[in-house]
Amino acid sequence: MSSPKSNKPKIVNGPGGYILQDVPHLVDYLPTYPNPLQDNPAYSVVKQYFVDADDSVPEKIVVHKDGPRGIHFRRAGPRQKVYFDSDEVHACIVTCGGLCPGLNTVIREIVSSLSCMYGVNRILGIDNTIPLDSKVVNDIHKRGGTILGTSRGGHDTTKIVDSIQDRGINQVYIIGGDGTQRGASIVQNHVGIRRRGLKVSVVGIPKTIDNDIPVIDRSFGVDTAVEEAQRAINAAHVEAESNENGIGFVKLMGRYSGFIAMYATLASRDRDGLRRMATCDMVIILAEGAGQDLMSKSMESNTLKDASSNKILKDAGLWLSQSIKGRFKKNKMVMNLKCIDPTYMNRAVPSSASDNVYCILLAQSAVHGAMAGYTGYTSGLVNGRQTYIPYYRITEKQNHVVITGRMWARLLSSTNQPSFLKKQSFLGPKDIPEEKKETPLPDCRDCNGVVDIPPVTKEITKLK
Amino acid sequence: MSSPKSNKPKIVNGPGGYILQDVPHLVDYLPTYPNPLQDNPAYSVVKQYFVDADDSVPEKIVVHKDGPRGIHFRRAGPRQKVYFDSDEVHACIVTCGGLCPGLNTVIREIVSSLSCMYGVNRILGIDNTIPLDSKVVNDIHKRGGTILGTSRGGHDTTKIVDSIQDRGINQVYIIGGDGTQRGASIVQNHVGIRRRGLKVSVVGIPKTIDNDIPVIDRSFGVDTAVEEAQRAINAAHVEAESNENGIGFVKLMGRYSGFIAMYATLASRDRDGLRRMATCDMVIILAEGAGQDLMSKSMESNTLKDASSNKILKDAGLWLSQSIKGRFKKNKMVMNLKCIDPTYMNRAVPSSASDNVYCILLAQSAVHGAMAGYTGYTSGLVNGRQTYIPYYRITEKQNHVVITGRMWARLLSSTNQPSFLKKQSFLGPKDIPEEKKETPLPDCRDCNGVVDIPPVTKEITKLK
Amino acid sequence: MSSPKSNKPKIVNGPGGYILQDVPHLVDYLPTYPNPLQDNPAYSVVKQYFVDADDSVPEKIVVHKDGPRGIHFRRAGPRQKVYFDSDEVHACIVTCGGLCPGLNTVIREIVSSLSCMYGVNRILGIDNTIPLDSKVVNDIHKRGGTILGTSRGGHDTTKIVDSIQDRGINQVYIIGGDGTQRGASIVQNHVGIRRRGLKVSVVGIPKTIDNDIPVIDRSFGVDTAVEEAQRAINAAHVEAESNENGIGFVKLMGRYSGFIAMYATLASRDRDGLRRMATCDMVIILAEGAGQDLMSKSMESNTLKDASSNKILKDAGLWLSQSIKGRFKKNKMVMNLKCIDPTYMNRAVPSSASDNVYCILLAQSAVHGAMAGYTGYTSGLVNGRQTYIPYYRITEKQNHVVITGRMWARLLSSTNQPSFLKKQSFLGPKDIPEEKKETPLPDCRDCNGVVDIPPVTKEITKLK
Amino acid sequence: MSSPKSNKPKIVNGPGGYILQDVPHLVDYLPTYPNPLQDNPAYSVVKQYFVDADDSVPEKIVVHKDGPRGIHFRRAGPRQKVYFDSDEVHACIVTCGGLCPGLNTVIREIVSSLSCMYGVNRILGIDNTIPLDSKVVNDIHKRGGTILGTSRGGHDTTKIVDSIQDRGINQVYIIGGDGTQRGASIVQNHVGIRRRGLKVSVVGIPKTIDNDIPVIDRSFGVDTAVEEAQRAINAAHVEAESNENGIGFVKLMGRYSGFIAMYATLASRDRDGLRRMATCDMVIILAEGAGQDLMSKSMESNTLKDASSNKILKDAGLWLSQSIKGRFKKNKMVMNLKCIDPTYMNRAVPSSASDNVYCILLAQSAVHGAMAGYTGYTSGLVNGRQTYIPYYRITEKQNHVVITGRMWARLLSSTNQPSFLKKQSFLGPKDIPEEKKETPLPDCRDCNGVVDIPPVTKEITKLK
Repeated sequence: MSSPKSNKPKIVNGPGGYILQDVPHLVDYLPTYPNPLQDNPAYSVVKQYFVDADDSVPEKIVVHKDGPRGIHFRRAGPRQKVYFDSDEVHACIVTCGGLCPGLNTVIREIVSSLSCMYGVNRILGIDNTIPLDSKVVNDIHKRGGTILGTSRGGHDTTKIVDSIQDRGINQVYIIGGDGTQRGASIVQNHVGIRRRGLKVSVVGIPKTIDNDIPVIDRSFGVDTAVEEAQRAINAAHVEAESNENGIGFVKLMGRYSGFIAMYATLASRDRDGLRRMATCDMVIILAEGAGQDLMSKSMESNTLKDASSNKILKDAGLWLSQSIKGRFKKNKMVMNLKCIDPTYMNRAVPSSASDNVYCILLAQSAVHGAMAGYTGYTSGLVNGRQTYIPYYRITEKQNHVVITGRMWARLLSSTNQPSFLKKQSFLGPKDIPEEKKETPLPDCRDCNGVVDIPPVTKEITKLK
Repeated sequence: MSSPKSNKPKIVNGPGGYILQDVPHLVDYLPTYPNPLQDNPAYSVVKQYFVDADDSVPEKIVVHKDGPRGIHFRRAGPRQKVYFDSDEVHACIVTCGGLCPGLNTVIREIVSSLSCMYGVNRILGIDNTIPLDSKVVNDIHKRGGTILGTSRGGHDTTKIVDSIQDRGINQVYIIGGDGTQRGASIVQNHVGIRRRGLKVSVVGIPKTIDNDIPVIDRSFGVDTAVEEAQRAINAAHVEAESNENGIGFVKLMGRYSGFIAMYATLASRDRDGLRRMATCDMVIILAEGAGQDLMSKSMESNTLKDASSNKILKDAGLWLSQSIKGRFKKNKMVMNLKCIDPTYMNRAVPSSASDNVYCILLAQSAVHGAMAGYTGYTSGLVNGRQTYIPYYRITEKQNHVVITGRMWARLLSSTNQPSFLKKQSFLGPKDIPEEKKETPLPDCRDCNGVVDIPPVTKEITKLK
Repeated sequence: MSSPKSNKPKIVNGPGGYILQDVPHLVDYLPTYPNPLQDNPAYSVVKQYFVDADDSVPEKIVVHKDGPRGIHFRRAGPRQKVYFDSDEVHACIVTCGGLCPGLNTVIREIVSSLSCMYGVNRILGIDNTIPLDSKVVNDIHKRGGTILGTSRGGHDTTKIVDSIQDRGINQVYIIGGDGTQRGASIVQNHVGIRRRGLKVSVVGIPKTIDNDIPVIDRSFGVDTAVEEAQRAINAAHVEAESNENGIGFVKLMGRYSGFIAMYATLASRDRDGLRRMATCDMVIILAEGAGQDLMSKSMESNTLKDASSNKILKDAGLWLSQSIKGRFKKNKMVMNLKCIDPTYMNRAVPSSASDNVYCILLAQSAVHGAMAGYTGYTSGLVNGRQTYIPYYRITEKQNHVVITGRMWARLLSSTNQPSFLKKQSFLGPKDIPEEKKETPLPDCRDCNGVVDIPPVTKEITKLK
Repeated sequence: MSSPKSNKPKIVNGPGGYILQDVPHLVDYLPTYPNPLQDNPAYSVVKQYFVDADDSVPEKIVVHKDGPRGIHFRRAGPRQKVYFDSDEVHACIVTCGGLCPGLNTVIREIVSSLSCMYGVNRILGIDNTIPLDSKVVNDIHKRGGTILGTSRGGHDTTKIVDSIQDRGINQVYIIGGDGTQRGASIVQNHVGIRRRGLKVSVVGIPKTIDNDIPVIDRSFGVDTAVEEAQRAINAAHVEAESNENGIGFVKLMGRYSGFIAMYATLASRDRDGLRRMATCDMVIILAEGAGQDLMSKSMESNTLKDASSNKILKDAGLWLSQSIKGRFKKNKMVMNLKCIDPTYMNRAVPSSASDNVYCILLAQSAVHGAMAGYTGYTSGLVNGRQTYIPYYRITEKQNHVVITGRMWARLLSSTNQPSFLKKQSFLGPKDIPEEKKETPLPDCRDCNGVVDIPPVTKEITKLK
């Protein structure tokens, strides 16, 4: 095993600026086996079923006639030769971090693929070390959550490495967010160092309901969560419309990224009601991590003198609703603010049909790669194609909604709300002249009742 | 207008085998205007908001290091210069063919984009010539169907062309299936010939719940329909499990393509129940257009002597259920066959959140293209990017499930059913030796109760 | 055992016209035991937990000041003394007839009540003779159908009686429709005759999605089915509104009773859409058993000469849609008829929350009664109270929608459709003068697009 | 008008202990009119459509052979004679208090009944004085909330009385909770006093999602809310099962009554999962008003020294979750507590089919009564029959879950949790010996993971 031991990215260059960011592979002097799938009745008639060894998928596909071809990833899928004999495989599966719709579908499909496609019999669910087979996992995709249990902070990588050594595990499937993928990367290196010469594949499956993992198109479960979030938004609209100066306030998941808030607002597009003309009702969608630095600022400036606990500093929902209440009170206006936090209800549901299909492909790709001897990769969808992405690309940064981007512009435009940014440039709050900050509450005839708070915006000061 | 008048594809070649299949454009001596979006508060802060004139998107993205770059399409999006003054635009919108979730969302968004982004005031809904504005369409995306009405067979293209001339319409948005896109292509040519020198943009928006339009990733509404189809499949499973030798039979939309049947089966993956051990229950998912030629054959061979009407010849569901009943009767076995046809219930629902977002992007792209002077194109998603595709690519063929393809193999594998195809080659029914045809009903211990009938398969004879 | 042996109704009279239609009881010289519930921590603090031996519930509760008190039933619930020692109980549960939401909830709760409340260990599921305990049934209420299997026509009563004798079963819980309750009644008599002097309780639990069982308020599962039927009706409306002269046609369960059709129409009350003004669209809700004799008539009168098969004679949906199509054709009008039959989808879903609570009370009542030595009764809800009803009351007739009743009048009024009945009297079709029969299709400005076909009406001839 | 002026209950006595608690009626020397319904095509064929003047419905229907007949209410429904000429009616509708599923259905049906049944043209929606007709209200039952707006605390009764006088309103429909019914009672008296001799009917329609209004069977919207609450409970279970020592905590509506918490727990009955064996997970369902006095006690006893604000005192959810966290911390155990508050999501949904039918009957009954000259009544369901209940019965007390009652015992039994009450008697907290209070957290092997906190219980101290 040459590559797993080293941390150096494995790069292949080609003509026209072609770059392949390849993933580690078990060394070539290891014995290989014909892929048992070739005898599987489901696959045997598929022409060109096995993926061509040279297939790759470009990362950027908006191109110019004369532009370079750029970075590519290895295409996922079954290979003609596998590096594991089925009887020799001892796999384990771990789920880490917060819940996400589809976790059980991924677990189920890794087990099914290993056992039904490749004839693998030894599969372990960690942490509670349940032996898994296709019978045990048969119905689990109809339930939310994870049958393997999970914990914030993930599992200790040393423990996993020890476990690998102690139990003789040689395929590790780690389903988790960017922190977990980083952990997987460490496990991969440890395994490479400690178990040099031994065959161990470490595979990451990206899971983040916040959709903040880079490179990949979207994370599984996000569609389901956005669909569920519509319920909360609808309820907020009904509350806003039915009450005098009603404000429906929805706090959605997404920590620092804001994608669920953005997509749910875009999908909902709820703008009107019979009573809208008479009253000044409003719906506010807040991404959970929004305005963190802003809140510290407001504390210093004594706007919220009464608040002293750490909690208030961190919870943008609480902070914002208090600010709004304060403003209305100052103007001696009646107001009905209804806060809805559907977080656990959005993430604990079973996955939708489209997320189910996505999870199936993701899990199958992960298994095909491990059997083919690849390791140290994350199985991920890039431009609609399943690929193997090197860990360092997944962990190098976090995606978040860009409020100077096109999707955000679409949101502003479709909900008819102001951008809160000045035209000439993208200014920090210190650059906004003092009088601007005194802008009153948005006049409800100008906006359409949907105010989506950008997750990383500074402009929220205007509402103070 | 040079290009619209000619039918010749507009092709641009570049280095490395780069090909751009371009769409027609209004001639360049026409006056242009700065895009009013640049003053829109939502867009003005977006850096590089306008699409670069040279942006294109490749059709095939599974590539080799040394392979040619291949066919590309023009990227969709707003352009710096527009070819229509907002006051001069007179747009019309038409919906054709069967219902599909998301139709109203597309209508709503074309109207919103034209009126809120570009300030267009004259928009007509055809056939019933309703004047449309953002108020009229405000809530329509929450209902299934189309507020504009629709009819199988679509609208008469001559009528549309006349209507364009009579009413002075200069932007035509046609939402419909491949037949409709062909119609749009004809309208485009007629307009080009009859109204030479006049500015008219004809834009297609692909709509097909069968997902059979080529080039594009998927059609809007398909996700929603697949989600809804789960209800029917679940009911079929419950009926199958609860009755002695129960067979749940679900006929799903998709005419000649079979995609909804394939994806719904894959997403559902329902395999087991408490009673499965005791009885021989089964679920059959049938794509509506399956086995057409097969049925004619069976008629000739007098298998179903009693049947004489044309209906039976065409309805594979009826034919198959009669065949199954006959087989059980012959073997003197009790059997409970329950047929479910959820077609209208699947297509008449409002679109899901993810289809809603998709419809929004599709409609905005269509409008940006027309304003920028493009015509004769279909707005479509290619590898996850919005593009403008020339009509001839959309109408040249129909996609369908390929039963020697990888997705079908995944389906077979994940539902653990036999392929019904011989390994050595893909044979027509005449090649199957007579004794093979006498194969008994699939033994229920071997299959897992999900038999998905491929939409274009010949192998169905085995069930006779 | 005195009472079970005789078929004679057990009647108790009281002052003011009070009548108690009592149920059989195991004879009083049998030993009794204190109810083990008195030591159950959940029940021990409930004041007056045990039902007073004299509690009864009136059948008719719309009364006059001077009117007689009328018929009463014994109130269900736990009794101070039980006639079975827990160790001695050997219970069996049978489900018969078509599926119905809530079957699994009833099974689950009979098992839970017997085992958790009364400490019974021997419970058998028939027909597949599964031993049942609270662990096996734990999650079954989340699935539709019945884990015990079922068959139209029910189980052979002789077989059940034999089984009782062979296995030493002494509590029989039979969940089924009126036919089943009749069977239960026969079982009760056989047991009474054959096993004189032995303790066997035979208990019926009424199940009919048609809601046609008399005396009881409503059957479990009906609410759930009506809720589900809304989906089909909504789809029918969307199809009707979106197509030119669209007719959405929904056939709902209910055989000869028509309740689901009536309640679903009343609950839906869908009347309007943007396009309604322009076109003549219509929604027709048909109860499955409607118009049986009418169809025979039309056959005799050669209206549908082409039809020859038995099927057409029986399927009112087919007959009616052909009639409608014929009418439109004769008048050379375009028409789009979309038929939806959601039967299996409506009945195979898990039960709603309110049906779940209902099923729990029903099952608990059934168990309390059997333990208290009652037999030959149906556990049923009368005026909102759980009671024990003698079999003969349940099987004496079938309820159906009365089209001269108040609920039907409410339906007509709320959907604004004509009654099709003449005012002066309730006439058979032969009394309707010939010219009346020539009435054209209902003018769509007069009706509101919802035409609910009464299940037993003759008036349908008007549409011929 | 003799009766409206006086506050004295109107009582009629009959033989056998029959008591009719009658409602006020406009005086008999006023002119009457034949009910226009007799010419309505929907009603004209209904035999005995009109309610007999002597029909009444008993309040208690669990009776003994020799017991007295007890209290009765007047049966609701159309009368042969009405006291209002349709042209003379000027009705208004008010909605007060928190949202509840079905409000719009009730509004819609009052309008439909008045206009379509009785030909009334002048109907006003208050507070925003919208003129209402059947077209305006046509689709509103498909949305949650109330199109009339609402406010906690209700509308000022003096204002309503003034409004009645100023606008010449003679039928007032007030939809609201017990506070509102009290207000309606006051309006009734004011109107009686101020407008003596004038015809004004004041009608209450009981609305309380807490189900705490006495006499009536249940409030509209409660079924829908319980159904929706299942989502939160399911999410809580998934979170509890998937996390180490997971606790899913759901706070449900119901203020001092606790019914939604009780029914939702009973309906859900979620008890188990794959991981239950391994971990100590738990689901807690809390009724919002639970433990108010208990919290004050704990404050006095300095248990939660840090908390100082009024909020904490009142929010049982916060208090309880802090207590639990404290306990786990003290025992140095890891714990994952996830709080879900679905309040606004449960109450802002449109009503279910069965609630829709209920709302229709309720509204029709209200209108029939007012037209027939009754006033000062609440339209309500008693033992499954629509009745007119005098105000004083509705406002005399509030229902709440009785933790020594049978339904609570059913809940304890079916979820297998301890009663927390001592057997011998129902003790106040001061009677519980000190050592009892030291009982540790419920051991998770004894309980099944569902702990429903009774809304008015003192026993919660045990968890301290």
